Amino acid sequence: MSKIPTRIYLSEDEAPQYWYNLRAVMKNKPAPILHPGTLEPVTAADMEAIFCKEPVKQELDDTTKLIPIPDGILDFYRAYRPAALIRAYYLEKALGTPAEIYYKFEGTNTSGSHKLNSAGPQAFYAKEEGLARLTTETGAGQWGTAMAMAAAFYGIELTVYMVKISAEQKPYRKAVMETYGAEVYPSPSDTTDAGRRILERDPDTYGSLGCAISEAIETAMKSDKCRYVLGSVLNHVLLHQSVIGLETKTALDKYGIAPDVIIGCAGGGSNLGGLIAPFMGERIEGKNSIRFVAVEPASCPSLTRGRFAYDFGDTAKTTPLIKMKTLGNGFIPSSNHAGGLRYHGMNSVLSQLFEDGLLEARSETQNDVFEAAVKFSKVEGILPAPESSHAIKAAVDEALECKKTGEKKVILFGLTGTGYFDLSAYMQYNAGTLSDRVPTDDDLAEGFASIPDIPQNR
Amino acid sequence: MSKIPTRIYLSEDEAPQYWYNLRAVMKNKPAPILHPGTLEPVTAADMEAIFCKEPVKQELDDTTKLIPIPDGILDFYRAYRPAALIRAYYLEKALGTPAEIYYKFEGTNTSGSHKLNSAGPQAFYAKEEGLARLTTETGAGQWGTAMAMAAAFYGIELTVYMVKISAEQKPYRKAVMETYGAEVYPSPSDTTDAGRRILERDPDTYGSLGCAISEAIETAMKSDKCRYVLGSVLNHVLLHQSVIGLETKTALDKYGIAPDVIIGCAGGGSNLGGLIAPFMGERIEGKNSIRFVAVEPASCPSLTRGRFAYDFGDTAKTTPLIKMKTLGNGFIPSSNHAGGLRYHGMNSVLSQLFEDGLLEARSETQNDVFEAAVKFSKVEGILPAPESSHAIKAAVDEALECKKTGEKKVILFGLTGTGYFDLSAYMQYNAGTLSDRVPTDDDLAEGFASIPDIPQNR
Repeated sequence: MSKIPTRIYLSEDEAPQYWYNLRAVMKNKPAPILHPGTLEPVTAADMEAIFCKEPVKQELDDTTKLIPIPDGILDFYRAYRPAALIRAYYLEKALGTPAEIYYKFEGTNTSGSHKLNSAGPQAFYAKEEGLARLTTETGAGQWGTAMAMAAAFYGIELTVYMVKISAEQKPYRKAVMETYGAEVYPSPSDTTDAGRRILERDPDTYGSLGCAISEAIETAMKSDKCRYVLGSVLNHVLLHQSVIGLETKTALDKYGIAPDVIIGCAGGGSNLGGLIAPFMGERIEGKNSIRFVAVEPASCPSLTRGRFAYDFGDTAKTTPLIKMKTLGNGFIPSSNHAGGLRYHGMNSVLSQLFEDGLLEARSETQNDVFEAAVKFSKVEGILPAPESSHAIKAAVDEALECKKTGEKKVILFGLTGTGYFDLSAYMQYNAGTLSDRVPTDDDLAEGFASIPDIPQNR
Repeated sequence: MSKIPTRIYLSEDEAPQYWYNLRAVMKNKPAPILHPGTLEPVTAADMEAIFCKEPVKQELDDTTKLIPIPDGILDFYRAYRPAALIRAYYLEKALGTPAEIYYKFEGTNTSGSHKLNSAGPQAFYAKEEGLARLTTETGAGQWGTAMAMAAAFYGIELTVYMVKISAEQKPYRKAVMETYGAEVYPSPSDTTDAGRRILERDPDTYGSLGCAISEAIETAMKSDKCRYVLGSVLNHVLLHQSVIGLETKTALDKYGIAPDVIIGCAGGGSNLGGLIAPFMGERIEGKNSIRFVAVEPASCPSLTRGRFAYDFGDTAKTTPLIKMKTLGNGFIPSSNHAGGLRYHGMNSVLSQLFEDGLLEARSETQNDVFEAAVKFSKVEGILPAPESSHAIKAAVDEALECKKTGEKKVILFGLTGTGYFDLSAYMQYNAGTLSDRVPTDDDLAEGFASIPDIPQNR
């Protein structure tokens, strides 16, 4: 056995005391978020009607590099962190690669993913600001579960609008949230105007994330004591997720390990953005020459096939406008079990880094991803989430490339979560019935048509 | 924050290098296992027809205190261990108790429980002995999943007979096992004489653990290259599980923490026996005065209401006879969601310790257990398995007693696994429809009638 342990855990006093705000070191900052009515940059006051105050401040801050984590949030992080950085000795051996492979595993908490890293802070700030309740939406259920856990921890009420088809197909996800005390409504519901309108038109609708977002925002705006929280895409979410990268960097530095390539799956970008933050910061500062790779599903290729344009964050076109890589808010991805990666756009920081050539991207089809996932699960003993398995697939390919060239690269990837709630997808993979459909150029054109026609340069 | 961290992880070089065989230090050893035909003590040769050779040796060894863990198994343990010892700061605060509470959490691996600690060794020995295949049975699916993972790790085939009702109700458990490459048959199946006989009699049967065991043993005995493995009750399983107690002891010793009471849930006894092994050994050697508490479901109270007698391990009366606390092999527990605790008997070591007054026992009803589980999940952030929650309930009661008396006791309990696959039970608890039925004296009398009428003292 090498001197580097299989699992590297930081001690509590090595845990990060601040978040890393990558925007502060970027030469080309992400373009400002625009108010959809005025097309002017949004102000804190605009956003505070919907979101909590401190997250809004963080959302708009592109100058403070290190933002201290309040004690009340460090206390929350200690309940399930630090997460292990794992040396993939078993996978390396199975692949016969000279490469060293490491992965940061965020899946050992009950929510099953990294989402808890931002759910905690968002619940904390809401409590600090004297709010009584938060609202949010959830599709597959990971974010809703994380928020339910965080709300229970801080003693604040939570209403979750869960996409109806998902609430029906995943009753256990709903049960976890309810066990943690959250109020869960299948969306569309009759508790909001937005929901009632859609139900009137189509009583048998499956629901959609767009509709769930509208219901959550409407409910939040009804009361001074209630605000809305979101689990990805936004800059403050990436900021909170920087604990992933900071812990990883401390662990690697401790053993003198310098990664050559860092890989993460990318949907809205929260995990990838958090993982790479401090490493990318140093790259921009000229202190390393690491390659950064985003991996997205071929069925929803915002970075690899999308446009760089101002677009809405939701299909109902109610959010502020964000300059990002996007397939268009009206784009409908074909069936894919990585629910967390089925988003038409990409966080604006990551989009800008991609445009600037600092971030690579590749896309993968489902069956290839599940093949890598199953191989990984047998040797590493962890059944990964379909989302996370996109990063596994890319890491395996990098390692096999090293096998060809004989290079001893150091490969790092983010393993965002477990696949306990995705077993129907594994069943389909085992049965050989998973679809590998990718969007045609016509599909893309249809999506692009939904991008609003506004001046793109400011 | 105190100097004791929330999570204590051992480094790899602090990990146990040997298992702790508690029988070696017991003054009253467990009574010998008897051959059901001759009523004479079984020999290694008798048992090797069914089980692998090295586990049989371990099963019959009551003199070697420390048994070295082979490198090939240490390698397996490194893939998911050491497990964290967690200081329950948040639970202590919520209870307002002066007690210190610690728990050893075995649920972060993909099988979701401690079962992997014996699955690995049993697969390793089978591979070492040149076998091609193993067979086993599974009820709720935790043991089957652990065996599937271990078999995949060592590259040996596995056939799992899964109780039919469970295979139908928990298709995802079956999917995990199949993803790891195991062959899973709902039992009774048409692949064995035992299965076909039962199907002929009752084609619509739900199946039973007894029947699944019979099928697994029959299949194992058909081939020289195939053996049977079992996940609890037997002494070699407790031996493998002693890694739990050894890691815990090293972690506590490191911080100078001396437990006053150690609590574990008890079904067949594998977790409790493993957790207490080195502590109980020192108690017997006069080096401590720790109290040891087994917690069982009130619906299946083998320690608190059972008899100490030779009994069969299975309802089909095919196994060797074991002297143990038993409700009778024909006892049918009322509905309880802690599937892992629904066993009529108790491991012979634990039964003897109970008889000798070294081990206390108490029983708990379902609603009380789930109430403790939900309270725990909200503050500690882990949704526990119903089995593990029995230990939580007893630990909470001990801590509340300290609150009354002002004592600063150190309470340690075993948290064996997560409740991800038990959410239907949580749903019933949330809905208030969980049964608290306990067996009547008549129910017990019926079970006792199935205990074989043989001389009990030898």
